[in-house]
Amino acid sequence: MTDTPQYARVNGRFAMHRGGWLESPSVAYETWGTLRGKGDNAILVFTGLSPSAHAASSAENPAAGWWEEMIGSGLPLDTDHYFIICVNSLGSCFGSTGPASTDPLTGQRYRLKFPVLSLEDVAEGGYVVARHLGLEKLHTTIGCSMGGMSALGFCVRHPGFSDGAILISSATRALPFSIAVRSLQREIIRRDPKWMDGNYDPADPPLTGQRLARKLGMITYRSAKEWEQRFGRERVTSEGRGGDPFFSEFSIESYLEMHANRFSGQFDPNCYLYLSRASDLFDLAEHGGSLKTGFSKLRLKRALVIGVETDILFPLHQQRELAEGLSAVTPDVRFVPLACIRGHDSFLVDMDAFRPVICSYFETCGS
Amino acid sequence: MTDTPQYARVNGRFAMHRGGWLESPSVAYETWGTLRGKGDNAILVFTGLSPSAHAASSAENPAAGWWEEMIGSGLPLDTDHYFIICVNSLGSCFGSTGPASTDPLTGQRYRLKFPVLSLEDVAEGGYVVARHLGLEKLHTTIGCSMGGMSALGFCVRHPGFSDGAILISSATRALPFSIAVRSLQREIIRRDPKWMDGNYDPADPPLTGQRLARKLGMITYRSAKEWEQRFGRERVTSEGRGGDPFFSEFSIESYLEMHANRFSGQFDPNCYLYLSRASDLFDLAEHGGSLKTGFSKLRLKRALVIGVETDILFPLHQQRELAEGLSAVTPDVRFVPLACIRGHDSFLVDMDAFRPVICSYFETCGS
Repeated sequence: MTDTPQYARVNGRFAMHRGGWLESPSVAYETWGTLRGKGDNAILVFTGLSPSAHAASSAENPAAGWWEEMIGSGLPLDTDHYFIICVNSLGSCFGSTGPASTDPLTGQRYRLKFPVLSLEDVAEGGYVVARHLGLEKLHTTIGCSMGGMSALGFCVRHPGFSDGAILISSATRALPFSIAVRSLQREIIRRDPKWMDGNYDPADPPLTGQRLARKLGMITYRSAKEWEQRFGRERVTSEGRGGDPFFSEFSIESYLEMHANRFSGQFDPNCYLYLSRASDLFDLAEHGGSLKTGFSKLRLKRALVIGVETDILFPLHQQRELAEGLSAVTPDVRFVPLACIRGHDSFLVDMDAFRPVICSYFETCGS
Repeated sequence: MTDTPQYARVNGRFAMHRGGWLESPSVAYETWGTLRGKGDNAILVFTGLSPSAHAASSAENPAAGWWEEMIGSGLPLDTDHYFIICVNSLGSCFGSTGPASTDPLTGQRYRLKFPVLSLEDVAEGGYVVARHLGLEKLHTTIGCSMGGMSALGFCVRHPGFSDGAILISSATRALPFSIAVRSLQREIIRRDPKWMDGNYDPADPPLTGQRLARKLGMITYRSAKEWEQRFGRERVTSEGRGGDPFFSEFSIESYLEMHANRFSGQFDPNCYLYLSRASDLFDLAEHGGSLKTGFSKLRLKRALVIGVETDILFPLHQQRELAEGLSAVTPDVRFVPLACIRGHDSFLVDMDAFRPVICSYFETCGS
């Protein structure tokens, strides 16, 4: 029996990709299933921007995880056969060292003294965990959304360590639409007077800015088509408009409100800002000077790339680009575009579409 | 010679569509060309949310208008043949009565005491101008974006008054994606502490909220494809990042900043909020209980519907719906989908694509 999450700690300085370093940072992780050999059956999962390492329930923590329907006995990431590891991104606030953590050298929270965060650092956090667990290889590295770029960062920095990769609703790099959205989300938080240049009271964070930024997030995580079918012009109520000319009467408005309130208290604002910027900065082409060179460094044996037609944050043509780039240097690449209508979030909410695709990857390559 | 803009004033009470009334409101307008008959050659233009009535330059006001390349001698809206009127929307702040105007009954700004604004009221403002000019008919009513819904409101309330309609990048009603975007824009402004429940100092308005809302607007007015081609991952500079982990280094970020700064000082925040909400509320189906009944009330002889493939705010399927609904009850309907890459704003910035389509409408129907 172990605590949940567990921690891998770096002894000494951890050099950051874009300069600066952290003193003895920790990376939180959880595992499911039983390790075989030095990693022959090990699967490493990198998350999107906001989840913790708690991807699935366990004896130690029975709460449902963010990928509960994907990980378990008889599920696509089958704990009867595989040893699955999920890491909390370095820079996040669910156990890994991030801007909300205490700098051991000063005894104060890092806040904006945390060095610039890159997804290469998040990737390296995954490597720290793998080595901590004694792994010398991985069966497959998986990344969803931002996590797909972290997975690319992992493979490009440790070529050949992982035999395979599953990249879901991700990209080689961010395009200006998603940079614009994230830049605006960050500015909304930073303009909240309670942010105080990052020096907010942790008990009284810039919740208004966080709520508004989350609403903008939701607008880009789902799809117009889904909302048209689901909400149309449905009203929650038309009573109460009374003297308020901007009364929120449409169902879509209360849906956004509900999601914003659910998220905002959980995530540290500075951690959010750092991870959001890291998503903008990542570019596979920086590894060798071109995308082609970046791809050539990955040294994968197989890859599965999945994308969703209605995704506006990581649009489908970016997954096509990923698959094409991988195909030039990887023996076995499969690209699966899905017709899900729930946009970027489909990998979290449309399990019926994703499960068979991921199952077939593992059936094909065996374990 | 006349002043610019000119004003049509209502004598007495003006009843608002969703209740309440205004005392003797004014509607600002400008005209170009020479009126013939009682309106045989008259074209009435309803604007999108933010423009004034200054659609084109004139002897009285030589500044370029928002549709400068569309209106003039030899241009699609040809002032050698047509008499063109553009109205500033009721509720706006460029001469027409709106929340920033003084209520003659109290001597105070209306602010949030302005009644709920509907696009039917904006439409009625256009009718006030038409009657003020002595018109008994119109050759064509034109509306772009929100203005297309105002034009539908005009035709449904005054069936047969206008022979034709040109509806550009518009819709029968807003769908939840655009309602979500506008609802968030409004909340961003209303959460700015300087908004003060609408009682801001006009000399010190909630500029931060307005800037952020404008950035969100720009994200939905253009297209991801345009930005990918235009900006890619281009940097303004990478110098200056220094200690700022969120330093704005991408060109797309400075582009948004420039647009936000250009707009924000010009538009009254409360007027913006009212017009934005009016765009959510409009629904042609409310006129008779169904879209079909709404369309049947328009009594147009001809219509041209134009849409743009890359528009995410008023997506192309909404213009297709408009054209199909009109076709059932209108002798002559033409639907032109354009492959412009500049999204919703294309009608303002991609004149080469729009001019020939509008020219051909007037060539076909003569004057």
